[in-house]
Amino acid sequence: MKVGFQNYFKGNTFANRGMTLESDINQTNEYYNLHDIALVYKKPTPIKVVQVEYPKNRIREAYFNEPSTLDYNGVYKGKYLEFDAKETQSKTSFPLSNIHKHQLEHIRKVLYYGGIAYLIVRFSTLDKTYVLFGEDLIQFIENFDRKSIPLDYFNEKGYLLELKYAPRLDYIKIINQILNIKEVR
Amino acid sequence: MKVGFQNYFKGNTFANRGMTLESDINQTNEYYNLHDIALVYKKPTPIKVVQVEYPKNRIREAYFNEPSTLDYNGVYKGKYLEFDAKETQSKTSFPLSNIHKHQLEHIRKVLYYGGIAYLIVRFSTLDKTYVLFGEDLIQFIENFDRKSIPLDYFNEKGYLLELKYAPRLDYIKIINQILNIKEVR
Repeated sequence: MKVGFQNYFKGNTFANRGMTLESDINQTNEYYNLHDIALVYKKPTPIKVVQVEYPKNRIREAYFNEPSTLDYNGVYKGKYLEFDAKETQSKTSFPLSNIHKHQLEHIRKVLYYGGIAYLIVRFSTLDKTYVLFGEDLIQFIENFDRKSIPLDYFNEKGYLLELKYAPRLDYIKIINQILNIKEVR
Repeated sequence: MKVGFQNYFKGNTFANRGMTLESDINQTNEYYNLHDIALVYKKPTPIKVVQVEYPKNRIREAYFNEPSTLDYNGVYKGKYLEFDAKETQSKTSFPLSNIHKHQLEHIRKVLYYGGIAYLIVRFSTLDKTYVLFGEDLIQFIENFDRKSIPLDYFNEKGYLLELKYAPRLDYIKIINQILNIKEVR
């Protein structure tokens, strides 16, 4: 959880913009919003409030809750999107310990209800960022008894996202391909 | 904003369950989830964290942010849903002051992107609860220079929700009707 808290502050206050995956995604979402492409938000961090000081409504005691859903959701062409951003330093595989059990359960649910769920995974050392759809993530977990997903699996099943000036990570382009394929079927 | 804060605590700690609109909606969402009908969540309350005490990660100073989106969102048959729950004591009309300017802007955006946006409005004194779709809300605001929406408009354009044992407020039934009408067109 500590990494999560650090990211929380990075993302909100002293972020080195353009450097982290989270800031790249935030810029991408801003671009989509400004250009009327899609509406995607980062969900507020769930916080359990214990004590509030009135009348200023100042919170004096509260705790971060572990997230049980994915960090971002939104709407594109009427469809429900939900995804999470994950980074790894590994050069060879993405450790599944990065995904909380509740998050995995949540991905299954979103897919069941016809939503589009995915991860945006960055191999920071390799400077490579992929979209991996929930279906492919779950297929891997169900078929392989491994603690990490090898890079090869991302090359085979995932979609490489090129880092551009704007939008930084054009994941909607990938979603659009997938939707077109589904419509043709 | 004070009303919002009171609701926040009502909903989370000393709620008189089954009495408030919020608890009726939470029960409805739980029912939908348990019966594999739809996946709808109340978004975490946005909180601005100012000071954290380590290593316990205890938040010592934070403030509630004003919400700029609607309180609930989710997925039904692949479609994006977003809505808010509003209560009024009035017997004759729903004051538009209940809807923040940013929320109205947000409703327009969700509709633009093909999502389904609506309000669930309860006239508490009359014991009547309506679904009012975003399109009809915006049409009213654009065509009438009034500070509240008369009950008649809800009877004409809205959908009355019967209060039942389970689900308490079956709003998905209404969404389903709307989706079927759209498919037929």
